Amino acid sequence: MIRVTIWNEFRHEQIEPVKSVYPRGIHSAIAGGIAAEDLEIRCATLDEPEHGLTDALLNTTDVLLWWGHRAHSAVSDEVVAKIRTRVLRGMGLIVLHSGHNSKIFSAMLGSSCSLRWRQVGEKERLWVAAPSHPIARGVPQTFALEHEEMYGEPFGIPDDGKIIFMSWFQGGDVFRSGVTFQRGSGRIFYFQPGHETFPTYYDKNVLKVISNAVRWAAPAEGEFAWDCPKCEPAEPIHPR
Amino acid sequence: MIRVTIWNEFRHEQIEPVKSVYPRGIHSAIAGGIAAEDLEIRCATLDEPEHGLTDALLNTTDVLLWWGHRAHSAVSDEVVAKIRTRVLRGMGLIVLHSGHNSKIFSAMLGSSCSLRWRQVGEKERLWVAAPSHPIARGVPQTFALEHEEMYGEPFGIPDDGKIIFMSWFQGGDVFRSGVTFQRGSGRIFYFQPGHETFPTYYDKNVLKVISNAVRWAAPAEGEFAWDCPKCEPAEPIHPR
Amino acid sequence: MIRVTIWNEFRHEQIEPVKSVYPRGIHSAIAGGIAAEDLEIRCATLDEPEHGLTDALLNTTDVLLWWGHRAHSAVSDEVVAKIRTRVLRGMGLIVLHSGHNSKIFSAMLGSSCSLRWRQVGEKERLWVAAPSHPIARGVPQTFALEHEEMYGEPFGIPDDGKIIFMSWFQGGDVFRSGVTFQRGSGRIFYFQPGHETFPTYYDKNVLKVISNAVRWAAPAEGEFAWDCPKCEPAEPIHPR
Amino acid sequence: MIRVTIWNEFRHEQIEPVKSVYPRGIHSAIAGGIAAEDLEIRCATLDEPEHGLTDALLNTTDVLLWWGHRAHSAVSDEVVAKIRTRVLRGMGLIVLHSGHNSKIFSAMLGSSCSLRWRQVGEKERLWVAAPSHPIARGVPQTFALEHEEMYGEPFGIPDDGKIIFMSWFQGGDVFRSGVTFQRGSGRIFYFQPGHETFPTYYDKNVLKVISNAVRWAAPAEGEFAWDCPKCEPAEPIHPR
Repeated sequence: MIRVTIWNEFRHEQIEPVKSVYPRGIHSAIAGGIAAEDLEIRCATLDEPEHGLTDALLNTTDVLLWWGHRAHSAVSDEVVAKIRTRVLRGMGLIVLHSGHNSKIFSAMLGSSCSLRWRQVGEKERLWVAAPSHPIARGVPQTFALEHEEMYGEPFGIPDDGKIIFMSWFQGGDVFRSGVTFQRGSGRIFYFQPGHETFPTYYDKNVLKVISNAVRWAAPAEGEFAWDCPKCEPAEPIHPR
Repeated sequence: MIRVTIWNEFRHEQIEPVKSVYPRGIHSAIAGGIAAEDLEIRCATLDEPEHGLTDALLNTTDVLLWWGHRAHSAVSDEVVAKIRTRVLRGMGLIVLHSGHNSKIFSAMLGSSCSLRWRQVGEKERLWVAAPSHPIARGVPQTFALEHEEMYGEPFGIPDDGKIIFMSWFQGGDVFRSGVTFQRGSGRIFYFQPGHETFPTYYDKNVLKVISNAVRWAAPAEGEFAWDCPKCEPAEPIHPR
Repeated sequence: MIRVTIWNEFRHEQIEPVKSVYPRGIHSAIAGGIAAEDLEIRCATLDEPEHGLTDALLNTTDVLLWWGHRAHSAVSDEVVAKIRTRVLRGMGLIVLHSGHNSKIFSAMLGSSCSLRWRQVGEKERLWVAAPSHPIARGVPQTFALEHEEMYGEPFGIPDDGKIIFMSWFQGGDVFRSGVTFQRGSGRIFYFQPGHETFPTYYDKNVLKVISNAVRWAAPAEGEFAWDCPKCEPAEPIHPR
Repeated sequence: MIRVTIWNEFRHEQIEPVKSVYPRGIHSAIAGGIAAEDLEIRCATLDEPEHGLTDALLNTTDVLLWWGHRAHSAVSDEVVAKIRTRVLRGMGLIVLHSGHNSKIFSAMLGSSCSLRWRQVGEKERLWVAAPSHPIARGVPQTFALEHEEMYGEPFGIPDDGKIIFMSWFQGGDVFRSGVTFQRGSGRIFYFQPGHETFPTYYDKNVLKVISNAVRWAAPAEGEFAWDCPKCEPAEPIHPR
């Protein structure tokens, strides 16, 4: 059983036009869309105490999903530090859409994570760039989203990003829209689609990608168990 | 002075329609387009003895450009082996367009270097993905080629490719169109534009990219001088 | 069931002193040492017809292990080409010790794969550099081999090598002794210990590493099924 | 002229035994040791106002060196944020020895940057792993420091670290002791030697490495000039 926590800022959804698209919140749409027998899914949102991310919850989370946008700065540094520590020890982290500017994504990667953007609802077309990667399994080689926010290159990520998806936008832009990283024992996946005014998180291909990513990012048995050994010399150090 | 050798298959240009576009060959168009005081440019072509790549020429080449297409298999394995050895010791290698399927590119990277393609003359738009890289210096962040051959993802290259350019195609495809690698002391750059029926190698932005790449790929002073040291133990090995 | 083929040059073992260490060949020692219920293990050697690597065997091999040393050049280019094609499509490849100079390792990586070496039987100590990697699972953070051949840096491998093990040698050298790569759909692991005059392939830690690597390198369900789609434009190309 | 700022915690040197080794501070030893006509060197220390890192100084710094140890937490988050922003825009950053645990190194890389350590003054031997890299130019392939603090694997850095030096320690450990990264336009180099109780920063090879790294990390002409373009669509978006 993989213990999944979906974190959502959950502020856009309080008012229209987002309210109509995600009446119970983006987190609920994703939770419903990826529900499966091997997943135990919990949700947490910004305005709960500790943003809903209590130690009890974090310490039993195998994979954390993150959707945030206009309130990145409202997330407490203390919670970010806890998440980062847990990722380094093995928890998976899936950062969605505008989460590229979140404190936690920046804290994990160090780079600017900046990009170009345009919100006119143009068509996006995604391509699988790493067809044998587990996150691409069962996903068509290309699929389109009729309306999405454009995120364009240059994308300010480190060079160890493994490219799983690349996107084409109607207005002429391109983007590395699905990229994996590893930090410590933790696997990280960034996935670009998901603007709050579009029904992206009901799209079957988007949900398939997220479902795959959850399984890929979950730590294997024993990955949290690493302890640093004593530093007694293993070889003799002669007097000199 | 950087000693540049432009190698071209030079068969397409013998007949129309390519003959009209590149009457003196693709190599001559590139040579003219990148001519500069710090470059000493020579050309070589497939049907010369040793494909024009004599030891005398190769051993005085700092950067080799490679354009080939339909006659990849006509290039001798012996010449490929010589080029590879020299790249590993420091010679720069710039592989253009259909050279993705050349013996030398495959020999340097090991991967399939395969891609999807479509030749209908659609528009290509390139984007700079690594704005501070020397190969992108002075290149506009985006520029278009009205007619190019589509090369599309997935592109079968290793994960250490550093992405300098990414391309958008009118027909809905995307591609990592400018990528660098290092093998041994040698720097390698792949650049996708350059179908033989289009005047791509007269485009000022394309020529600027190639010009930059030549300087970037040239070995620095002394890079060819590496010798493997003796393998006497540096620390005492005690009898046991 | 993972179908494993252990390929061995099997010439050193014909005479002393190697014959006494590996009377039935290095391949047999490894096969015995990693035997398990989920592995179907076959062996093949250089002097068999087609080096034992018939199409029937290769096409049913999930993971190929490779030990060669003094007869690298006796391996036919045709067999090497077949192996490379299959690795790119998903077969795992584990290259052992002096296999760093094999045709197949060079064909997969493109780099020189050169290193410094010294054969005086000094002590080697290995360290886990990537503790959460599946290949390191259950392996002590450090373990020693009393007598091994020294392989030392610089090791001529590409930059996308993921370092799993690093080694210390009594004579003062260091080495990236366990490194993974991906080429196409195929996972590759290089593991340095295994000089023919020492009982390295009876060491429980060495066998644990190889056992782990076999499971890691095996292709997942469906990884061989990739077909390139048609290249009809996904988006309309307007007449111009 | 490259404008270099050497930042030092400068607390250990107030008392013995460090005071005798570096009576004017580690920063002064390095400044003296790398002095050259093309370098304009300034120093800054923790207990100055703003840690000596005023906007006026930071904004005219091309390469920042960082030595800190026991007072990492005393460095203000605001100064760290300023440094990070400037690195992303092109300033070089060279992190020395115990700086692996500094706020700025962690902020740039995101990973734990943890390691194993032992302070018994054993011998360290460094090896060049990337002989053609500019940071290794003119450095012997191997050189020893008679007494250093042991830093051992596993080293908690991201996979895009390019390994320039690897170290052997008398007590049986190994370490990636010289590693480069790029974040945004900024080049980063970590170099492990430099425990405060040893005269490491008077060693000619160590000084050669640092001198080389300063030139390598300095931003090229124009690297700070990048501006994000407008996001008007480059291609027409048709009504739908």
